[in-house]
Amino acid sequence: MAKKLSRGVAVVGVGMSKFGVFPEKTSRDLFVEAFQELRQSVQKGFDPKDIEAFYMGNFTSDCFENQAHLAPIMASWVGISPVESTRIEDACASGGVALRQGVLAIASGEVDVVLVGGLEKMTDLPGAKVTDALALAADSLFEIPAGFTFPGFYAAMATAYLDQYKADPDALLRVGIKNHKNGGLNEKAQFNQSIKDVMISKQRKAAQKGLPIPEWADEMAFLKDPKANPMIAWPLRLFDCSPVSDGAAAVLLVSEEMAAKFTDEPIFVVGSGQASDGALAERASLSEIPAAAKASRRAYEMAGLTPDDIDFAEVHDCFTIAEIMATEDLGFFPRGEGWKAAMQGQTAHDGSHPINTSGGLKSKGHPVGASGVGQVVEVWKQMHGLAGERQLCGNLRHALTHNVGGTGQTCVVHIFEKRN
Amino acid sequence: MAKKLSRGVAVVGVGMSKFGVFPEKTSRDLFVEAFQELRQSVQKGFDPKDIEAFYMGNFTSDCFENQAHLAPIMASWVGISPVESTRIEDACASGGVALRQGVLAIASGEVDVVLVGGLEKMTDLPGAKVTDALALAADSLFEIPAGFTFPGFYAAMATAYLDQYKADPDALLRVGIKNHKNGGLNEKAQFNQSIKDVMISKQRKAAQKGLPIPEWADEMAFLKDPKANPMIAWPLRLFDCSPVSDGAAAVLLVSEEMAAKFTDEPIFVVGSGQASDGALAERASLSEIPAAAKASRRAYEMAGLTPDDIDFAEVHDCFTIAEIMATEDLGFFPRGEGWKAAMQGQTAHDGSHPINTSGGLKSKGHPVGASGVGQVVEVWKQMHGLAGERQLCGNLRHALTHNVGGTGQTCVVHIFEKRN
Repeated sequence: MAKKLSRGVAVVGVGMSKFGVFPEKTSRDLFVEAFQELRQSVQKGFDPKDIEAFYMGNFTSDCFENQAHLAPIMASWVGISPVESTRIEDACASGGVALRQGVLAIASGEVDVVLVGGLEKMTDLPGAKVTDALALAADSLFEIPAGFTFPGFYAAMATAYLDQYKADPDALLRVGIKNHKNGGLNEKAQFNQSIKDVMISKQRKAAQKGLPIPEWADEMAFLKDPKANPMIAWPLRLFDCSPVSDGAAAVLLVSEEMAAKFTDEPIFVVGSGQASDGALAERASLSEIPAAAKASRRAYEMAGLTPDDIDFAEVHDCFTIAEIMATEDLGFFPRGEGWKAAMQGQTAHDGSHPINTSGGLKSKGHPVGASGVGQVVEVWKQMHGLAGERQLCGNLRHALTHNVGGTGQTCVVHIFEKRN
Repeated sequence: MAKKLSRGVAVVGVGMSKFGVFPEKTSRDLFVEAFQELRQSVQKGFDPKDIEAFYMGNFTSDCFENQAHLAPIMASWVGISPVESTRIEDACASGGVALRQGVLAIASGEVDVVLVGGLEKMTDLPGAKVTDALALAADSLFEIPAGFTFPGFYAAMATAYLDQYKADPDALLRVGIKNHKNGGLNEKAQFNQSIKDVMISKQRKAAQKGLPIPEWADEMAFLKDPKANPMIAWPLRLFDCSPVSDGAAAVLLVSEEMAAKFTDEPIFVVGSGQASDGALAERASLSEIPAAAKASRRAYEMAGLTPDDIDFAEVHDCFTIAEIMATEDLGFFPRGEGWKAAMQGQTAHDGSHPINTSGGLKSKGHPVGASGVGQVVEVWKQMHGLAGERQLCGNLRHALTHNVGGTGQTCVVHIFEKRN
């Protein structure tokens, strides 16, 4: 029973900072980088004064930077005050939910031009404090007191998944290999290296230090070497986990009728859906994220499309298992088949269902509030043939983004369409 | 150039917890209280399963409660998962901005029934930590390093105002007397006492302890007694400052065409406006809040109304000076005349422009994220003749709410209309 939006909405420009670790930069610097790139990306140019509303996805600048009230502060910093400025927080889904608010604001008839931002500056805190801050995304009553941190939550899901479907744990490693391969072709990625590149780099470092040079038969052997890829929470190893990152991303949305003023090649937002859920302990199954299935159903209904219509997708691979579950929750593969698809290369760049051509959260990085907005940047690049060495072939008409918060308490899905 | 919303929006129910200090309650308890009262308030009843979206205004549960991602968690707690659930943060304006997101979501055509919540649980932290948390609402680069906390910011504004308009500082005290008088008639208020009640209570306590019983000629004498009402930041004394509070509020919004299904007496949201600003240091004048004037202009234009049409208003009196500035920013009085109106009783319950009949933030309490939503509860009560001893006389057709974040980096204004 998804409803039609009152007005159509188009993406007319995107920008992002490099994702990574930037001790010399503030979050303001990063957001300016994203905003400036966005300005350059708008084919026919635009005056920032045309922006009528600003939604900023951010998880917890409160704890990372001692700064709440981030939206009007960033609006002032990029020179768009007094535009209405609202921070959206839904943990790691903050960016995708901010995008949805921008879509709804335009559909409401109240505004025509909306800036959607996503931002997180995580690496200024020491590691243990980052873990504490990330734990705010979980339920403080039902999840945290059980002794879990996020790798543990997703390890529990991975364990349930592997058990339920008798899946080969190597599928997890395959996701990491694929996403690093894609991220190795993305200059904005935090880990701009394939696993092969990582292996060579480790060998080089050993040689420089005069240490014995480690040898691995292939990428799988490297990822199974407990020294190269230590276990974090069984079955998740280091290379199954997305990193702690700094980064910002921005998207310019306009009403459908105004799109031609900005570009001859808009990307339309034809589907948008969001759903919520309780704590992990309340769910009937740990091998799926019910909110993702619900959010995507809503988005597909709004778009009048099915999973088969989607040419490529950026999904929330905070851990490798999350990508496998996502490909099932989104209907790309039947339940219990996602791991096989990962093994068989169906989600690879040249597969039937390319997933995370950007490198995903795993390789591109996961500056929490920026991740959901950064996904749209990849959709834009692929659909405009701007993805360089990682450009997908063929006519890309429909793409999907999938952004998850917490242990799946929030999921938001968007579907994009290129019409010319 | 405010635009018409694509669809009309109505309030069909409201609820709030008592505001105050509740060490024995969690924020979940408080939100349940608000939600249960809301359920009772819906004339024809409703099934919580009809709710299609949930917006939760909250400033920093991150720091107050070690819990972000509050919206889906509260949705689960009141039994409305998997409804889409989004936390909105714009410092002390979070509640009013959440209301605006609910209005826009319905206007967008995407949803028909929206729950808007506001929540803050502030008193579990020790006082100094509360001050630190509140400081997150100010600009960490341009405001906090100047050594200010919030009483200081508003004291600077008060100083500028008093100087610019040669205003009598007694006007500030008059605001406090009025709001405590109103709050004394509001059983939900944290300080459910008029200043006279406070005086009597202090005398009684002294008598009980066998101490000399203090005597004051009147309320003004009490408020000028530095022992009874110590200076916090000149010219603001203790009774010029809103308190640290726990509390929750909730409002049920529906599309105009569905309103009759819920109640025969809906209140329509006919105006909504929001604006932002940079740090205090960037402003040409400290004696006004430019974002408030801009937000209200947008709301008046959308409603097709002027300040003269407003029968009563709930404004953001985080400090007494803020109420005086608000009555000018909103156009109720010309610049420099707000303090005279306060002195002359024009904003009193029986005045020409009743302001904060609920007691305002000053007396009702200021659980940050809940304040903007709580304002709508008072609008509902007054318009339905449910305000008990503080009920306004006459036919109340139009009301306004005004919610400010930080030092005025955010302001959001709503206008409500009763049609029968």
